[in-house]
Amino acid sequence: MKIVTFGEIMLRLTPPGKERLVASDAFEACYGGAEANVALSLAILGADASFVTTLPHNPLGEAARNHLRRYGVKTDKILFGGNRLGVYYLEQGIDRRPSRVVYDRKGSSFAEADPDGYDWESILAGADYFHLSGITPALSKACFAATLSALKAAKKQGVTVSFDPNYRAALWSVEDAAKAMDEILPYVDILMTNENQAAELFALAVDPCDEGYQTLAKALYDRYALKAVALTERRTFSANVNSIAAKLYDGKEFVSSPTYKMDILDRVGGGDAFAAGLLYALASNMPAQKTVEFAAAASCLAHSIKGDASLATKDEILSLANGNMNGRTKR
Amino acid sequence: MKIVTFGEIMLRLTPPGKERLVASDAFEACYGGAEANVALSLAILGADASFVTTLPHNPLGEAARNHLRRYGVKTDKILFGGNRLGVYYLEQGIDRRPSRVVYDRKGSSFAEADPDGYDWESILAGADYFHLSGITPALSKACFAATLSALKAAKKQGVTVSFDPNYRAALWSVEDAAKAMDEILPYVDILMTNENQAAELFALAVDPCDEGYQTLAKALYDRYALKAVALTERRTFSANVNSIAAKLYDGKEFVSSPTYKMDILDRVGGGDAFAAGLLYALASNMPAQKTVEFAAAASCLAHSIKGDASLATKDEILSLANGNMNGRTKR
Amino acid sequence: MKIVTFGEIMLRLTPPGKERLVASDAFEACYGGAEANVALSLAILGADASFVTTLPHNPLGEAARNHLRRYGVKTDKILFGGNRLGVYYLEQGIDRRPSRVVYDRKGSSFAEADPDGYDWESILAGADYFHLSGITPALSKACFAATLSALKAAKKQGVTVSFDPNYRAALWSVEDAAKAMDEILPYVDILMTNENQAAELFALAVDPCDEGYQTLAKALYDRYALKAVALTERRTFSANVNSIAAKLYDGKEFVSSPTYKMDILDRVGGGDAFAAGLLYALASNMPAQKTVEFAAAASCLAHSIKGDASLATKDEILSLANGNMNGRTKR
Amino acid sequence: MKIVTFGEIMLRLTPPGKERLVASDAFEACYGGAEANVALSLAILGADASFVTTLPHNPLGEAARNHLRRYGVKTDKILFGGNRLGVYYLEQGIDRRPSRVVYDRKGSSFAEADPDGYDWESILAGADYFHLSGITPALSKACFAATLSALKAAKKQGVTVSFDPNYRAALWSVEDAAKAMDEILPYVDILMTNENQAAELFALAVDPCDEGYQTLAKALYDRYALKAVALTERRTFSANVNSIAAKLYDGKEFVSSPTYKMDILDRVGGGDAFAAGLLYALASNMPAQKTVEFAAAASCLAHSIKGDASLATKDEILSLANGNMNGRTKR
Amino acid sequence: MKIVTFGEIMLRLTPPGKERLVASDAFEACYGGAEANVALSLAILGADASFVTTLPHNPLGEAARNHLRRYGVKTDKILFGGNRLGVYYLEQGIDRRPSRVVYDRKGSSFAEADPDGYDWESILAGADYFHLSGITPALSKACFAATLSALKAAKKQGVTVSFDPNYRAALWSVEDAAKAMDEILPYVDILMTNENQAAELFALAVDPCDEGYQTLAKALYDRYALKAVALTERRTFSANVNSIAAKLYDGKEFVSSPTYKMDILDRVGGGDAFAAGLLYALASNMPAQKTVEFAAAASCLAHSIKGDASLATKDEILSLANGNMNGRTKR
Amino acid sequence: MKIVTFGEIMLRLTPPGKERLVASDAFEACYGGAEANVALSLAILGADASFVTTLPHNPLGEAARNHLRRYGVKTDKILFGGNRLGVYYLEQGIDRRPSRVVYDRKGSSFAEADPDGYDWESILAGADYFHLSGITPALSKACFAATLSALKAAKKQGVTVSFDPNYRAALWSVEDAAKAMDEILPYVDILMTNENQAAELFALAVDPCDEGYQTLAKALYDRYALKAVALTERRTFSANVNSIAAKLYDGKEFVSSPTYKMDILDRVGGGDAFAAGLLYALASNMPAQKTVEFAAAASCLAHSIKGDASLATKDEILSLANGNMNGRTKR
Repeated sequence: MKIVTFGEIMLRLTPPGKERLVASDAFEACYGGAEANVALSLAILGADASFVTTLPHNPLGEAARNHLRRYGVKTDKILFGGNRLGVYYLEQGIDRRPSRVVYDRKGSSFAEADPDGYDWESILAGADYFHLSGITPALSKACFAATLSALKAAKKQGVTVSFDPNYRAALWSVEDAAKAMDEILPYVDILMTNENQAAELFALAVDPCDEGYQTLAKALYDRYALKAVALTERRTFSANVNSIAAKLYDGKEFVSSPTYKMDILDRVGGGDAFAAGLLYALASNMPAQKTVEFAAAASCLAHSIKGDASLATKDEILSLANGNMNGRTKR
Repeated sequence: MKIVTFGEIMLRLTPPGKERLVASDAFEACYGGAEANVALSLAILGADASFVTTLPHNPLGEAARNHLRRYGVKTDKILFGGNRLGVYYLEQGIDRRPSRVVYDRKGSSFAEADPDGYDWESILAGADYFHLSGITPALSKACFAATLSALKAAKKQGVTVSFDPNYRAALWSVEDAAKAMDEILPYVDILMTNENQAAELFALAVDPCDEGYQTLAKALYDRYALKAVALTERRTFSANVNSIAAKLYDGKEFVSSPTYKMDILDRVGGGDAFAAGLLYALASNMPAQKTVEFAAAASCLAHSIKGDASLATKDEILSLANGNMNGRTKR
Repeated sequence: MKIVTFGEIMLRLTPPGKERLVASDAFEACYGGAEANVALSLAILGADASFVTTLPHNPLGEAARNHLRRYGVKTDKILFGGNRLGVYYLEQGIDRRPSRVVYDRKGSSFAEADPDGYDWESILAGADYFHLSGITPALSKACFAATLSALKAAKKQGVTVSFDPNYRAALWSVEDAAKAMDEILPYVDILMTNENQAAELFALAVDPCDEGYQTLAKALYDRYALKAVALTERRTFSANVNSIAAKLYDGKEFVSSPTYKMDILDRVGGGDAFAAGLLYALASNMPAQKTVEFAAAASCLAHSIKGDASLATKDEILSLANGNMNGRTKR
Repeated sequence: MKIVTFGEIMLRLTPPGKERLVASDAFEACYGGAEANVALSLAILGADASFVTTLPHNPLGEAARNHLRRYGVKTDKILFGGNRLGVYYLEQGIDRRPSRVVYDRKGSSFAEADPDGYDWESILAGADYFHLSGITPALSKACFAATLSALKAAKKQGVTVSFDPNYRAALWSVEDAAKAMDEILPYVDILMTNENQAAELFALAVDPCDEGYQTLAKALYDRYALKAVALTERRTFSANVNSIAAKLYDGKEFVSSPTYKMDILDRVGGGDAFAAGLLYALASNMPAQKTVEFAAAASCLAHSIKGDASLATKDEILSLANGNMNGRTKR
Repeated sequence: MKIVTFGEIMLRLTPPGKERLVASDAFEACYGGAEANVALSLAILGADASFVTTLPHNPLGEAARNHLRRYGVKTDKILFGGNRLGVYYLEQGIDRRPSRVVYDRKGSSFAEADPDGYDWESILAGADYFHLSGITPALSKACFAATLSALKAAKKQGVTVSFDPNYRAALWSVEDAAKAMDEILPYVDILMTNENQAAELFALAVDPCDEGYQTLAKALYDRYALKAVALTERRTFSANVNSIAAKLYDGKEFVSSPTYKMDILDRVGGGDAFAAGLLYALASNMPAQKTVEFAAAASCLAHSIKGDASLATKDEILSLANGNMNGRTKR
Repeated sequence: MKIVTFGEIMLRLTPPGKERLVASDAFEACYGGAEANVALSLAILGADASFVTTLPHNPLGEAARNHLRRYGVKTDKILFGGNRLGVYYLEQGIDRRPSRVVYDRKGSSFAEADPDGYDWESILAGADYFHLSGITPALSKACFAATLSALKAAKKQGVTVSFDPNYRAALWSVEDAAKAMDEILPYVDILMTNENQAAELFALAVDPCDEGYQTLAKALYDRYALKAVALTERRTFSANVNSIAAKLYDGKEFVSSPTYKMDILDRVGGGDAFAAGLLYALASNMPAQKTVEFAAAASCLAHSIKGDASLATKDEILSLANGNMNGRTKR
């Protein structure tokens, strides 16, 4: 099971103890980004996961690469060059004070990398899956061009393409994103989205019930000739209490996971862990019902793990997916 | 909008990670006190907020002053002298283990400052509001005398006086406090209190329902010829789960805020943030309903912010007051 | 009230901030073990508590001894020798991610200590109670032998024996443990157990209702000619939300505590705090109803206190047992 | 004594405990920049110090402003706008491992600010001194333009101009810097430099002895019609052991400070503290000999204080300058 | 070997990483005081050491007591009562920035304790040595009275009295201290002092050479009919580099230790460790030369150990005293 | 350049801030061991470095593997099995207080691993160098057997063998070690040792001067038919000040490095960094003089880097070896 992901990895700076950014005189540092998180979680699960990006040739770029390597991600296709590693500041919320992300990623090595610098034929050689999110094409024209090159190469080499629109208002307008979807989706095989994005990017209103989700999934499946559509359903009760559930339509079955209501340790990367779980289950040929349960459990556990990327193992995810939900101490 | 507050600011020492005082070998340090917290939050909101106190001429006194200055409080009327900065140790509780405060404020520079040292005419020049809590007069005879001088000067200079009885059993008896209320309230325009204090200090029993609170507010309004009475209603479910709601009577309307049930990050200063929100809304001439909502939202957010004083901005408070209550991440 | 406990104390290494073991580059260190925790909590309560063990003659062994001494446990009967202090790594869970304990206690000074090295006659001289858990005999043959010697000496010297089976699958099989119970229980006067252990170790199925617990308690009471049987009833909703309740049968009355649903700060040692509370209440001749309430409140508070051993004082436990359950700040 | 400084303030991120950047998972955060450090130290000394810059309108920009405000710097002339706060990563060296600075300041709000946005007439009104370093004009064309506007306004308003070339190879070439000196120096009254810069920027080779320094100082004094030339002489024995000494020529006298050999706590800002000390002494009309001693002592103490800016007080600097050099504990 | 010491123990608050008090938002906490430090080090050395004081009945007082208990000091003669635990803030210097101590000990439980509250007959029963420093009588009239009572009781019970004048300008004037010496010294058997105190308190000028020290020691020995006079000779090269040496005169021999030039980790308590080492060596009947070497080595090692009290063991001190001075790693 | 090393990697637990083990309530955690450190530093230098060991299948074993992977070491030949990861506690000394290592490595997965479990033919395929230290054979009979198997396989496959006796008194007697040398050295090509080991293990007394070292090197070279002999010369002035120098004899030349006197940040692994530097230089075919300079500079820098393994890059080492010794800040 060889999976390649492509995107930006940033330095994340988080004030300790849920302190406010304006008041903090220290930061916890980790490295993350949507596609990097997916690769890292896949490596933890045991997949042959490779991450492709461009990093600056300085200690920060090396630290980002090392972070991935530490957890088993293959990093030999990463390019080094450009000016800086993107940064994001994360102020962690609680109760009715929302978490707040301050991005400082403009002018990053990845955003400014030459799209022709990536040798997709070599990068994708032997890959089963190629995954990226909508953040990558949103970062710059160069990144958009690189995205299209990658997608074309994947198609040509018969690599299954997985895509999560991951819309970020800070990066582009809904209109630009929707337009980009039209260019990207034709290359996509597996789409992960949710009701908000369906409405905004695909102009598909959803009735938030089982039937409504099924209608949505089928509409997307048909419109873009997909192999599978996964939907996540998040409810935000407070900054530290959310619920998550998932649906999957693979052309044959429409299946649902349980809903997990969660006390959150680290909110970031919940969707990326879902993507990793979904890809792992699909690549393992789990049945649809098991697949959606595995992916939802993977997402649930990611909320209880510090840092951008989930470190949950296959055994831990299976245990939860199989119903061991009470969190009793393991001695 | 120029607001002056007067009181003691202390060094707060908190064991990290909710550790017990008896077990801790480190303390997080911040600086706070009821009136200082009000001034700081008002400065964050954009008011011209000035804090008056007496601090020792040593690095601790300077650090307390600097803390206020950092967040925009005017500190040029602070006097320096005396022996020591008051200290309080805060053991943060969780679940059924209560938070515990150990005060060590006797003999502080503020408590022992000469009441004639403050030049109230100059301090209050141009001020719209003067705020203090019942802690200030409770600290010492000198503080009580200074309080009365300040109130008289405020009255003389036409400054609106705001007062929160903030009864602390560690500082004085109910009898002494009740007697002091009789001397202080004649100078007060805006009173913030709650059902417990009403019973203990003002001998007004309350039926804890909307009608009861209205009756109480009107009784206080009439008895002391006030301009506004604000009531807060806190319910303590556990050390880390409380609810807060507020009522306001301004002689015309009796209005109520929603009730916020909260997961608490830092319990101290919830009432001070309410005071700051109330004063800001009143000084901004918000309508009564908006005022009580703004003040309650300000108090709610204060519970999610580390340290004595709330750092919530006007936008954040308005967003919550306007119903964005789910704490969804802001990117 | 003189109480002696006997067992192993280990170094506990906990990643800060609920970080995963695999990701952590720092550990919080404390020292604990079932019987050491009981002794420590008893010392906090005011009992004359003595802990007996064997520690390595190095700074880790000294630190473990010093930890006990710091909180008032008598340590003059501790032996020094052997190779190492046992270690356990604690990964603290949240939500549906369970806490995980990785034991590294093989070959410890305690496990390998000569069972004849303890002079039980001197150790137990003047003791009212002797307490140990099933962990001690499970650690090694030597520990099992020492356990039996201790129990015989206690019986001979008229010391009341208290026992908590504390079954740990990592240490021995259910079969071996059940067999050991047959050897140990004849010396036991006070037994603390729960429905799971009843089924596994004593082959007594329980209907989880008041009547069922009563039937169980009486069965154990009769089978082993006990003086008292205490049952704890834990429900695990998630890694950070549990409930706890207790029952006590003393041959005359069957009494129950309230059920405490808890937000957990530190899960480890909840049972040990129950044992300490029970022994303290029994030794203080509290009535049965007060005893079960005191023990349950002691266990509840232990979940809100960092570290293995509860530091709750008698006043704090009584306050909770008497119904002050809302965790309101104490100033 | 009113002094205005103009430049960029950045977020400084330092791994704790002299850890390497590539290995660190946390950063200590502070805010600093050459001219901000000068303003801050001047405020500590008691001067009316104002800092002018452009900051992003986000929590990082506010934190940088608040840092200055905390220590008494006037910040009301700071503009808010643009995209980002510049960042620099500081890896602190020891022994023969050098400290390493990784700059990430491109595209900062300051570098991209409209040079016409500063109202110099208002900013410099009433100022006695205007200080900036060569970093400011090096940052961007806009910054260079702003520098010239400021210098012209200062000249026009009769403000004494102080300048430290502060050459940084990462920002511009020696050629560009030397050319810029030609445009800037005509507006300068007080120049602080050293032998390296003299050679590179002013093409003046120095014989590193007292006579040589005097020759250099006079040459600069004459060439640019200065009021005073200060020279610092640093010797770098290792990353944590340096020495510092200073010379001053004011057209009448050439005076020298003692040489301080130092165990270094924080190397950054040693030159800025010298500038602050020099300006303070000049503005206080200290005699030349006292001035150079005060400035050198200020620089020496800065190396023993954490963070970019020195927090040494006037009393502390005077004590050292007066010969109390042994660091005996003050009780 | 039973030794009793009497004095105040305070909470020491130290900013981490040699940060300045005015800049710190955290403190490392430990507990110390001259006589408490002596008792603690003696307990580490293996003596039966008991500390007598008065502590407040709150978690801070308990923590101070527990700190002593942790390291084996007997604390059963400590009284509980009064208002507060004294505090001192320690800003740790480096290079030419001195360490700075800010005392906040006025009104402490110890300073205000009733001098008649101590039952000296019982406290000193069986004691071989009684030690205190000049800080104790300097704290208050009550403390002075308690000191005299203790000294008289010691004399009566035949306990050898050891005294270190430990002059602190913040506590009393040289005149008052000198007068007090006249009252105290008649009860003293072992005096530890230095050239500064000799000049200030005993009006004995010293020529700082071996002969001079010998003359001084003999003068003191004769004037007060002492059993032994120990002199320490500290040279302060910088805040982090000092040297220490010691002399001892016992009526027969005048002996000297080597001089230790030291890189300092924690300066506080160097003299207390000397006192502990001296008392231990005297009580062990070491020869004079060995005694002075042991005491000086004990003092030297104390500078390399964090916290007020030295934790150096007898083996460690002997190893250094015997010439193993190079600090080679022990595996 | 492919290099394989074989040995044990342990969890290192270090109290922060040079605190004593007995006083610490937290540990900094890293992973290291002589041969693992060599592999890690070689990977940093750019070599294809592979580390072979046996680790427990738990989060600690995974973390040790991940630490190596993070910095580029190949870990695919690591076996998983056995009971535990070895631990060592490091108390860092300063001045005359030595650093102290408490080993807790008995019964580790590596020590107890089946020597036949390693497939040396596959492990060493394509390798240029095989390195291990005398610690590996000292750990257990199984490890000694595995060592011999590895050495034989290396010889058979034409891999150059490098060996550092690294004598540890805690692991075996001088006699046993000396005997083992006789079995190991016949397989060795490159020997790194020092005067102490020469005397103890090889019975070769050294006159500590250039000529003496040369005589020693030649004697070893001849006796064991080596390709190269490297000698390190460490002088220990205090726990935090050492000097290091090196000699190399390759059968043709005897060359010496400069002597580096160092302020030490982290003493552990200084010898391993020397080994890594030496192997890298030899494998790069640097001339003898450059080789010894590179290795000595690598060792010097390792003392300034936190953790067991040096993270110094090739550029950094070359810069120092080329004489840039003053540690001036790199911007």
